Amino acid sequence: MNTPPIITSLSKHYFDQFFGSLSGYQDLLSGVYRVDPEEPYSTLVDKINSTQAKILVTAWDSRPLPESFLNDCPTLRYVCHLTGEMRWLIPRKLIEEGLLVTNWGSAIADTVAEGALYLILASLRRATNVTNTMHLRKGWELSVAPPESLLDKRVGIHGFGNIAQQLTLLLQPFRCQISAYSPPVPDPILDSFSVLREDSLENLFERNDIIVEVEALTGKTENMIGKDLLKRIRANGIFVNIGRGKLVREKDLEEIAREGKIFIGLDVYNEEPLSPDSPLRGLENVFLVPHQGGPTIDRISICAEHALANIHAYNAGRPLESLVGINEYDRMT
Amino acid sequence: MNTPPIITSLSKHYFDQFFGSLSGYQDLLSGVYRVDPEEPYSTLVDKINSTQAKILVTAWDSRPLPESFLNDCPTLRYVCHLTGEMRWLIPRKLIEEGLLVTNWGSAIADTVAEGALYLILASLRRATNVTNTMHLRKGWELSVAPPESLLDKRVGIHGFGNIAQQLTLLLQPFRCQISAYSPPVPDPILDSFSVLREDSLENLFERNDIIVEVEALTGKTENMIGKDLLKRIRANGIFVNIGRGKLVREKDLEEIAREGKIFIGLDVYNEEPLSPDSPLRGLENVFLVPHQGGPTIDRISICAEHALANIHAYNAGRPLESLVGINEYDRMT
Repeated sequence: MNTPPIITSLSKHYFDQFFGSLSGYQDLLSGVYRVDPEEPYSTLVDKINSTQAKILVTAWDSRPLPESFLNDCPTLRYVCHLTGEMRWLIPRKLIEEGLLVTNWGSAIADTVAEGALYLILASLRRATNVTNTMHLRKGWELSVAPPESLLDKRVGIHGFGNIAQQLTLLLQPFRCQISAYSPPVPDPILDSFSVLREDSLENLFERNDIIVEVEALTGKTENMIGKDLLKRIRANGIFVNIGRGKLVREKDLEEIAREGKIFIGLDVYNEEPLSPDSPLRGLENVFLVPHQGGPTIDRISICAEHALANIHAYNAGRPLESLVGINEYDRMT
Repeated sequence: MNTPPIITSLSKHYFDQFFGSLSGYQDLLSGVYRVDPEEPYSTLVDKINSTQAKILVTAWDSRPLPESFLNDCPTLRYVCHLTGEMRWLIPRKLIEEGLLVTNWGSAIADTVAEGALYLILASLRRATNVTNTMHLRKGWELSVAPPESLLDKRVGIHGFGNIAQQLTLLLQPFRCQISAYSPPVPDPILDSFSVLREDSLENLFERNDIIVEVEALTGKTENMIGKDLLKRIRANGIFVNIGRGKLVREKDLEEIAREGKIFIGLDVYNEEPLSPDSPLRGLENVFLVPHQGGPTIDRISICAEHALANIHAYNAGRPLESLVGINEYDRMT
């Protein structure tokens, strides 16, 4: 039996990162052609048409597709995106026209949740001040409020999708009281994680020791978190953003950060890379990570396995996991 | 009924930290006298003898007791030590003579275990290099090996007392394979935590991704961890010490750290505070914390509650928790 052809729009670097350590799936991988994203669009089209491929595999550095893509490649049915967000890659119109699209779904939600827990602990334990004290100033005594523990704390989560759900599992042994603000999520889901519902963002920010931002970025949520909310966090409370930078008015966050009354842990920013001039840099109550919540290097093959299982399913006529329809596309983080 | 007198050898600073936020126990606290540790020993003796006190409460900054203490204060029966280690405070002879001594037992083991998890995550996620990159160099790209996740990793623990046991609970949602080297701990205890036994330290260091040091410090374990063991850790593996600094030959650790092949997270050191000249300072594969694993500020009242429950028990003739006999005294960390 012939292996169905699969075209990948991936650099050699990412191709090797995703598929290099996979031992299974040799049957599938033998039908794979790689078209470098640096090649012109016409090379990709030619490869798809000459192989009559139905499947295109994409990731962070793939060549963005034009709205004419399905006209240009009439055999193409399915874009298997190895990672998460893809609005920069796939125009909405292609999904309207019936293109099947999947992404990593919840395959790395646990890794990102680990990143959230890490930002919480680093903020509670004053990591930036500690590191500067120990390494830079060669001292011993902190110059900010003393460290606190996560045990028995109140944690408020904005958003309650896959990452938030995985985070509640990681928090379980800490006996935290967890609440969430996420109007579209129904009670039975919150109940199944023993999470309380907050009726407003105001309450979420006011009633918790630690606030975690993991809401999806949409036109409605952009800039949703401003000074009015951040000011409600208790003295020495924690604000963590591992969702999207644009959920937060960064100018407001900078102002609150400079006041030094709360501790802040950030994985994401309005613009990435974060500008060298950002006033967030250098503040010792702020712990900064360069957008690394996502899959760490040792978890990348899990995304590839998730994708290949989907390709298997497609070839066998079975339903796909993590399908991105118009609704998912519009509220993508 | 009269409240039995209790003498405390505590500075006002620690007295307030331990007892300031306790709302219950007013009956007990009304019988408490504080003798500042700065006062001469004779003042403490006079206070105990004039009140006929049976109980002395101590902590980190109390005045060390001489071997003649029970002769000097014939009514004294019980030293309720609010914190952990006390060999610097109470001579072994006093325990041999029948002085009752308790400490915080396992009351803060979960907080220290949280500190261990934090050191693991900070090492895996390259916290020192990240902080210097973001805050000091105002950059974005790391200059050490990329971050890894804790999920599904092999964790090897040296020692399997209260802290290690609490750590296995915190690690549960990460699906780690946990093993321990701790010959005196019987199989049923390891089994009840689903922890495998390693037969040697060599295997512990060689077969795990992350090695955690929480062994008790005794004459036998001092300097137990040297270059021969540290060299067995895999490339980009993690070594964390939240036990005692003197378990490790620090010169060897410095040498391994300088090679940069593994990531290291330390809460404890041979000498504390760590010397400003320590070669560990400034290395970006080393995450340093100034001995803060212990009770964070928000957990200190838990130690006080544990102590007051013991004082209640003593006054009522009930058995004490966390008694320190000769065996416990000799293997104290």
